Amino acid sequence: MALVNEHFLKIPNNYLFADVAKKVNVFKATHPKAEVISMGVGDVTQPLAPAVVEAIHKAADEMSTQSGFHGYGPEQGYDFLREAILKHEFLSRGIHLEKDEIFVNDGAKSDTGNIQELIRWDNSVGVTDPIYPVYIDSNAMIGRAGIKDENGRWSNVIYMPCIAENKFIPQIPDRRVDVIYLCYPNNPTGMVLSREELRKWVNYALHNDALIFFDAAYEAYIQDEDIPHSIYEIKGARKCAIEFHSYSKTAGFTGVRCGYTVVPKEVTASTLDGEAIQLNALWNRRQCTKFNGASYISQRAAEATYSAEGRKQVKATIDYYMRNARQILTVLKSLGLECYGGENAPYIWVKTPSETDSWTFFRQMLYGAHVVCTPGVGFGPSGEGYVRFTAFGSREHTEEALQRIKDWLK
Amino acid sequence: MALVNEHFLKIPNNYLFADVAKKVNVFKATHPKAEVISMGVGDVTQPLAPAVVEAIHKAADEMSTQSGFHGYGPEQGYDFLREAILKHEFLSRGIHLEKDEIFVNDGAKSDTGNIQELIRWDNSVGVTDPIYPVYIDSNAMIGRAGIKDENGRWSNVIYMPCIAENKFIPQIPDRRVDVIYLCYPNNPTGMVLSREELRKWVNYALHNDALIFFDAAYEAYIQDEDIPHSIYEIKGARKCAIEFHSYSKTAGFTGVRCGYTVVPKEVTASTLDGEAIQLNALWNRRQCTKFNGASYISQRAAEATYSAEGRKQVKATIDYYMRNARQILTVLKSLGLECYGGENAPYIWVKTPSETDSWTFFRQMLYGAHVVCTPGVGFGPSGEGYVRFTAFGSREHTEEALQRIKDWLK
Repeated sequence: MALVNEHFLKIPNNYLFADVAKKVNVFKATHPKAEVISMGVGDVTQPLAPAVVEAIHKAADEMSTQSGFHGYGPEQGYDFLREAILKHEFLSRGIHLEKDEIFVNDGAKSDTGNIQELIRWDNSVGVTDPIYPVYIDSNAMIGRAGIKDENGRWSNVIYMPCIAENKFIPQIPDRRVDVIYLCYPNNPTGMVLSREELRKWVNYALHNDALIFFDAAYEAYIQDEDIPHSIYEIKGARKCAIEFHSYSKTAGFTGVRCGYTVVPKEVTASTLDGEAIQLNALWNRRQCTKFNGASYISQRAAEATYSAEGRKQVKATIDYYMRNARQILTVLKSLGLECYGGENAPYIWVKTPSETDSWTFFRQMLYGAHVVCTPGVGFGPSGEGYVRFTAFGSREHTEEALQRIKDWLK
Repeated sequence: MALVNEHFLKIPNNYLFADVAKKVNVFKATHPKAEVISMGVGDVTQPLAPAVVEAIHKAADEMSTQSGFHGYGPEQGYDFLREAILKHEFLSRGIHLEKDEIFVNDGAKSDTGNIQELIRWDNSVGVTDPIYPVYIDSNAMIGRAGIKDENGRWSNVIYMPCIAENKFIPQIPDRRVDVIYLCYPNNPTGMVLSREELRKWVNYALHNDALIFFDAAYEAYIQDEDIPHSIYEIKGARKCAIEFHSYSKTAGFTGVRCGYTVVPKEVTASTLDGEAIQLNALWNRRQCTKFNGASYISQRAAEATYSAEGRKQVKATIDYYMRNARQILTVLKSLGLECYGGENAPYIWVKTPSETDSWTFFRQMLYGAHVVCTPGVGFGPSGEGYVRFTAFGSREHTEEALQRIKDWLK
């Protein structure tokens, strides 16, 4: 008789954003005249760059011909894209990687969710808290996270709280952690770590033979020149870190689906007998078995973001969103709200007034201002008492939402 | 210290097709003047249907505008595609499914590889042999397949041989099997199962509370009206079968990436305590956690295959490939080779002459005729002594390859 994987039964039925969407839909159904503005889901709103659209048209035309047709590509991605990535994302920063250390994918969510397949089921997992739910949930589904307690903490997960009181700087844990997920610039807090702070993590990993899974999905939003764009800017990271990138937020590809994962050949994990196994080879095997490559069209679209025109257009859209972010920060701070992030990331992390809990404040804002934010507690226990705003809306919607919040809070 | 998932170390380093590609590349490097024709990898060669290309252009234009831009779609896929699937793939065959039983993906390989995440680590797995490597490998990676013996058989996998001697009809096993992978029309043998034979499997699954993972990736190639296109044509299958579809071979989407998985709400697996858990909810949770939806562009492309024009064009390409298949069958049979498949599938399964082993015959044909086939043993132990030809090439290449084989074998 077929038996279910009972670990699935331990995780909440709904994915956080599905939960938020449900509540928003209930509100819309009962308030059909309300024009709800979402600053909740981290989804982009501006059109694709013209250079990208042109590349999609060109790829489609190729696919309509015998000689230009592309069937299965290499599971790791086409050379034209991997080479562009090496050149523009890494060589330009003095980081030397090899082509076969780059694995193109259909977006970071898949790879950040699947990467845990490479490690033993009983490795301990460390996460900053609050965090993007995928890192924990993907481990919970395989049993690595243990059991959830009444406070929403998993027994086998080591949480490194990032809150106002510690300036959102995660402390090196006092317990053994085998695998650490870090996301900087951070989703959901919008905060960044300095080179010095990141170095502490790399050194911890090197000294403890631990792994860092580093999510750099928002690196294109960094404004401050001192903040690293890649963990490989830190010496030694090539030996202990796997890094995830995505075109979703960089170039508005949330509906196009393309990203890439970097697995340096020096990164290893150990067998019980102490033999070091290269994870690059294992990831390659995993992807060759369970993935058939990203769409040729999406890869040509991604390549176009590296042309001179593409780079300009992509930057213009990022600047557009960061202008929203500055506006959100300005207005919410003027209302007396304690705000974090929004300077090197498109997320603003706001402490709720009067210690209101996250979901209550979310509901109050939805009903009071018809604006959607994301309850911070949905990202983890240390997110309680915070909500997240995104800067991805249109200028007009962002300004209107801020006006409504002003009117509501006054 | 980070420990590796040691199950990965038990599987061969290379994926079968990567292995074949390596040997072909060695040949090409040492015989630069040889024009190698591949009838090996199951990749399509004909351009996308004009209706599909038009849909891609239209989607790209939408994405270049504010109002037409699409960001994140529902992880399960857009309604426009799910509704088209329900109507054209199922309702048209008298099968009533609901929209939320359809999960759009980036191609069947991902889902056939990931579906095993829903079941307990120690479920026993049954496969027809020979088989598409993903079904076994994805289970081996999590430890469900046991240990591989010297004959290439995994200790926890129940093999149901499909060979000339049993007319390629898999026998119901005499041991308990919790999860059975079936692929019909079959990759690699090109054979099909009658309604009656499929019914035996559905009844087995119903009586034993087992699950069937039914890969219907090639159903569009069925010519015989009596052969089912979906396992849901069999009464009771809704209670025990999950079905996988892909636009890869149906519509040439190997480089576009789109497919869908059907998980009827009646399909359950049990907890240790005997509680029936709905797999539809679990798959939804898995996909919401580790997948961000198929590209909007790919989904509009898939939708276009259901328009009147699209259906005609897609059928014309399938007919083109099946003409190749008939030609391959005719010629190889005339050379005295024992051939199977090729009538309801784009694959022809050929017994090697004089009991030559698969890899030897593969090598002999590569060096002797400069034609690539796929060694049957790469698909499993019962594939030894067979090779697979695909009908996906161009007419010209197919005819030339057959001429060279004629010359070589005479």
